[in-house]
Amino acid sequence: MRSLIDITDFSVAELDALLQTACDISEHPEKYWDACAHKKLATLFFEPSTRTRLSFEAAMLELGGSVLGFSEAGSSSAAKGESVADTAKTVSNYADIIAMRHPKEGAPYVASKAATVPVINAGDGGHCHPTQTLADLLTIYRENGRLHDLTIGCCGDLKYGRTVHSLLAAMTRYENIKIVLISPEELQLPGYMKYEVLEKNGMSYVETTSLEEAIPELDVLYMTRIQRERFDDPAVYERLKDSYILTVDKLKDAKADMRILHPLPRVNEISVKVDNDPRAAYFRQALNGKYMRMALILKLLDEAAKGAQMEEEQNVVVNELRCENPRCITSTEQELDHTFKCVDAEKGIYRCIYCEAKKQKN
Amino acid sequence: MRSLIDITDFSVAELDALLQTACDISEHPEKYWDACAHKKLATLFFEPSTRTRLSFEAAMLELGGSVLGFSEAGSSSAAKGESVADTAKTVSNYADIIAMRHPKEGAPYVASKAATVPVINAGDGGHCHPTQTLADLLTIYRENGRLHDLTIGCCGDLKYGRTVHSLLAAMTRYENIKIVLISPEELQLPGYMKYEVLEKNGMSYVETTSLEEAIPELDVLYMTRIQRERFDDPAVYERLKDSYILTVDKLKDAKADMRILHPLPRVNEISVKVDNDPRAAYFRQALNGKYMRMALILKLLDEAAKGAQMEEEQNVVVNELRCENPRCITSTEQELDHTFKCVDAEKGIYRCIYCEAKKQKN
Amino acid sequence: MRSLIDITDFSVAELDALLQTACDISEHPEKYWDACAHKKLATLFFEPSTRTRLSFEAAMLELGGSVLGFSEAGSSSAAKGESVADTAKTVSNYADIIAMRHPKEGAPYVASKAATVPVINAGDGGHCHPTQTLADLLTIYRENGRLHDLTIGCCGDLKYGRTVHSLLAAMTRYENIKIVLISPEELQLPGYMKYEVLEKNGMSYVETTSLEEAIPELDVLYMTRIQRERFDDPAVYERLKDSYILTVDKLKDAKADMRILHPLPRVNEISVKVDNDPRAAYFRQALNGKYMRMALILKLLDEAAKGAQMEEEQNVVVNELRCENPRCITSTEQELDHTFKCVDAEKGIYRCIYCEAKKQKN
Repeated sequence: MRSLIDITDFSVAELDALLQTACDISEHPEKYWDACAHKKLATLFFEPSTRTRLSFEAAMLELGGSVLGFSEAGSSSAAKGESVADTAKTVSNYADIIAMRHPKEGAPYVASKAATVPVINAGDGGHCHPTQTLADLLTIYRENGRLHDLTIGCCGDLKYGRTVHSLLAAMTRYENIKIVLISPEELQLPGYMKYEVLEKNGMSYVETTSLEEAIPELDVLYMTRIQRERFDDPAVYERLKDSYILTVDKLKDAKADMRILHPLPRVNEISVKVDNDPRAAYFRQALNGKYMRMALILKLLDEAAKGAQMEEEQNVVVNELRCENPRCITSTEQELDHTFKCVDAEKGIYRCIYCEAKKQKN
Repeated sequence: MRSLIDITDFSVAELDALLQTACDISEHPEKYWDACAHKKLATLFFEPSTRTRLSFEAAMLELGGSVLGFSEAGSSSAAKGESVADTAKTVSNYADIIAMRHPKEGAPYVASKAATVPVINAGDGGHCHPTQTLADLLTIYRENGRLHDLTIGCCGDLKYGRTVHSLLAAMTRYENIKIVLISPEELQLPGYMKYEVLEKNGMSYVETTSLEEAIPELDVLYMTRIQRERFDDPAVYERLKDSYILTVDKLKDAKADMRILHPLPRVNEISVKVDNDPRAAYFRQALNGKYMRMALILKLLDEAAKGAQMEEEQNVVVNELRCENPRCITSTEQELDHTFKCVDAEKGIYRCIYCEAKKQKN
Repeated sequence: MRSLIDITDFSVAELDALLQTACDISEHPEKYWDACAHKKLATLFFEPSTRTRLSFEAAMLELGGSVLGFSEAGSSSAAKGESVADTAKTVSNYADIIAMRHPKEGAPYVASKAATVPVINAGDGGHCHPTQTLADLLTIYRENGRLHDLTIGCCGDLKYGRTVHSLLAAMTRYENIKIVLISPEELQLPGYMKYEVLEKNGMSYVETTSLEEAIPELDVLYMTRIQRERFDDPAVYERLKDSYILTVDKLKDAKADMRILHPLPRVNEISVKVDNDPRAAYFRQALNGKYMRMALILKLLDEAAKGAQMEEEQNVVVNELRCENPRCITSTEQELDHTFKCVDAEKGIYRCIYCEAKKQKN
């Protein structure tokens, strides 16, 4: 069964096809009114995320399908101790495709291995959020007219901001992308993102703490929210949360065709007054998210009908290493093999196939 | 975009048209089976209200449309600090019409200003609940055969009971309505309702503390629930809650064609034994609520298709006065102008356009 | 109005017809795509149960109908003190059929008396769960090829496990069934189940504490979960929960055509490694549950259209005895008659019609 767990599960050609389908949907929505007739999407949201959930539901409904599911773990069997794998197996009897959000990293991957229908990762803790990246890519494509030859600034929480991580991973595959990382020191992009994603793929980047200095050269400014729930110490959150607020004033030196993206929800990191600026693309981005989810559902159901399979993971070791990341699904899911993939044979570097936590093996 | 925030947003002629549509729906439901095909209603319930939510959902489904949304704030982006305006803008991408319930007064009004689709106020704190009033009007119209020449008793919590306030405001526009206000002294109708709504519109009313004495003259008896959540002191609630209970015995002097209405849910303010009395109209009232919501959805979607607009508020002052009502949406929504409307130029009386709190301006 | 509250509400002939319909649905789903067009199911879940709720929702959607409802009491009017009867009456205006789960025993029965549409008991506390039994019966029928001449082992929590109680009650009506009760002493089948259900119907049974010893003779092994919420003392739960775990090893002496059933969700009472054994039927059982719920919805809507009625309870006494079971709906529902049915006139034994609690009347 083909699923979407990480944005890199799809080739550039596949992403291009999704972009074209999404554009066609936005222009001719009536062509797709019955595309998913008699099909059901299950939205399994083990933590609440209104925007993402409603976007998926709207997507399925606009394809003529229907929706069932839950919006938080309190309403789910998980509260009674059911494993993610069992939930996925059971729900495979009730729906043709699953969109899963889960606080544990790797949970949708576990679900995709157990389910007999395609699984879409709708966000797994701080790990991945590939459909947000699909929304981002379509927005850049439609607003900037291209996915290559761009200078992209990422501003805010680059440490925990999984939407930035996924976007950066996706952009490595396009030509001539320059990245400007704008954040307080406490929230800089993690080292592994710099080394394994940006540098390994030869993508140029600079780091700065100043939004004002960075803004004039940008084609895209990707703002992110500093989330309270990512901090252990509330005091650190309070000190940092207002650091990188985009105001009308800060926009004065930006290019006329720069575009401002934001995964939403926003708290106060973009002034409401910026909304009326034509460069503010974030509400159109939410609309693009719906179109890309429609295209994605169509693609995965089509591949399921054809019997397409996920590629087997290569170079893995099973139950030789133990993942110690408390946010990894291995920390809670019962009878789950601890599986690591070798990412650097010479140095003996392995990563957990669920959460990508790093381990050294001699 | 045309929305329904307050019952007086609609003219009497518009209400009449809604009543006629609702009657037609109740007689020929199959005519409307595809009326909202490919349309989506978003039910954004920031506080739970099963009956109202299910009534809206049933209404949209019986029109051939579909529904998405959330049933309490815990599942919504509001828990992450998103503003009502942002939620409304985002959801405008996912639905064709929004029904919003919110604990803060004025929240649906804020949503209607931000959304690009029609917004229906499904209850905003203790402020308005116009679709309940639509249900009430259709029930009186169908049960009593007219909306004029009626003596209407309102019994119970007249202080906090927004359904009574909305019904009284609506009835001011019909001929020869007599109002009997039946409540304990602690829960009498607020002064502004008496002066600005009843007296200003020349509507006659009397106040009494005795349900028994009032009942013989009534054509309509509108019972309301005394809600625990409206009291600061639980002891006051406990003392009052049983005060005005309608029993079979109390009905013995009522007219044979009197009708008993109640917005539901009921706790114990009407004895279950009254349910079998033909004068008990409250469950039919719930059904009427569905029909009126169907008529309303049809009307607002039709006006949206025609590009109808809300009238701009006149005689307003922006950020000159500050609303201090802690239940007003201005107390929580970020970057929201504090806007007041002059309601009495001579005396310098202004009212908050969100919650109607009064201010004096010299 | 015909409802399904207890599995014995249906005759064996009716159950046979449901089994046949369910088999037909599983073979020709497309025949049923519009069977419930323009019909609505209300899922009123006063306590969460993902699997059961999603199964009902999938069932209705696959019949071409639509769904509304709530998934926990916090979102419902019950939080405001509304009675079950009032909820049922109100929701009858919004839906054509109701599936209700409620923590109080007898609540769906109360709902069925008040509603003007059919009510399906989707689980009422520790009392009944008849649609689970429908799933169990279809699974045995499809997997073992018959519903007679079977040795059925029930393992785990036989004291509180309502799925076992309902299955046993259902099996009394089939020929030559042998029951093996496998549990720790603390969780043995209650006496009234043995005397009034098994013995009264002449069904042979044995009790044992050893799963290993019992397994070789079984045609069906019905595993159940030991639920934390059924225990007053967590320590007892902790001591017992791992007692009866089915492993690959324990299966070595089982018949090749034995089938393992489980109502799900499972915690750890069946090792995940058992899932790959062809005898493991519990995920197919979940699928069968959907088919039986489809057949049931069709049957009840069909009977409602024909005006079928529930049989009146015979031999009852009203408000002469008082139910003292704190889990009975009589303990919370307002103005509800305490009604008992005479089950043994000679000895003066009565049972509450809501929860089946026993009373002696002289």
